[in-house]
Amino acid sequence: MYPKPFKKLIDHFASLPSVGPKMAERLVLYLFKQQPEKLVDFAKTISELKTNLKYCKQCFNISEGDLCLICADTTRDQKIICVVEEPLDIFAIEKTKKFAGLYHVLGGVIEPTENNNKLKISELEQRVQRNGVTEIILAMNPTTEGDATALYVARSFKEVDIIVTRLARGLSTGGDIEYADELTLSSAIQNRR
Amino acid sequence: MYPKPFKKLIDHFASLPSVGPKMAERLVLYLFKQQPEKLVDFAKTISELKTNLKYCKQCFNISEGDLCLICADTTRDQKIICVVEEPLDIFAIEKTKKFAGLYHVLGGVIEPTENNNKLKISELEQRVQRNGVTEIILAMNPTTEGDATALYVARSFKEVDIIVTRLARGLSTGGDIEYADELTLSSAIQNRR
Repeated sequence: MYPKPFKKLIDHFASLPSVGPKMAERLVLYLFKQQPEKLVDFAKTISELKTNLKYCKQCFNISEGDLCLICADTTRDQKIICVVEEPLDIFAIEKTKKFAGLYHVLGGVIEPTENNNKLKISELEQRVQRNGVTEIILAMNPTTEGDATALYVARSFKEVDIIVTRLARGLSTGGDIEYADELTLSSAIQNRR
Repeated sequence: MYPKPFKKLIDHFASLPSVGPKMAERLVLYLFKQQPEKLVDFAKTISELKTNLKYCKQCFNISEGDLCLICADTTRDQKIICVVEEPLDIFAIEKTKKFAGLYHVLGGVIEPTENNNKLKISELEQRVQRNGVTEIILAMNPTTEGDATALYVARSFKEVDIIVTRLARGLSTGGDIEYADELTLSSAIQNRR
């Protein structure tokens, strides 16, 4: 019922995560009302996204060059690696300005039913050996999958003389004890200081 | 902190309605993980959106040709016009299959502080005169702005011998009386049948 080019763009938007069909319709109508120059620039940025960017060959962060800006920064502590699920986690941690080591992006979490070879775990092991890393911080999401993945990664370093830590669990700053879930609250009690 | 092409695309997505900065980041990461061909096709669909589509010259619906498919359909009742705010409203009404007349897209609602010349009200008046329209259905949204706009449009046809109606107000099907707001519930009582 929609004209074909309109429908096609709705389908593209609706295929994105957290975008439902109704929202996709509204986005396409919004774009239709914009200046053509804006659409052309938007389109160019999408089509060139993968042309101008790649994965950092050391940490698998998103990067413009072979090494990402963080790996290329020699003032950072090369002996501590913070292991994260996705590149967006790096940007979140960097915003805190509390970590001056390097990162390692696993590219997801361990899924029991899937082949987990795509996760960059062996690459992490090699990096640790090669560069004499002394500490690994496991910064997976505090979810069941994140916990399982952290456990799995920690086990790979059981035989190696290296400190392995996880991010602390507790109450969110600005949160409300009344509304904290049971697991969060018990972590907060256990890890009190 | 993000690589430039990544940040630029985040900004583009974040400029869309109902897309916040966090969601924009997740959308761009998702796209980054897709096949290049998918991105190129997505980009092409965006850049060609306005090339392949225009506004129907009669009803201002989105159209591939000079006349939209509805206006071009001579089996539809040319004497009844349903006036809507936006093209998406047409598609919603068409899905009901309860209306076989033509449409007229105003392109928005009357804003007290703005110049309302962009609304296609005079074009509607001309259409009604030219084509001997006998009935107008005002299908604005049931909001304050929609109501004001409907009132304004209805007044323009005060001197003309024509039936002007509005869509009925009442309970949403599948809704819950307990949760219906006061205005909806009073409309439902007043318009009971």
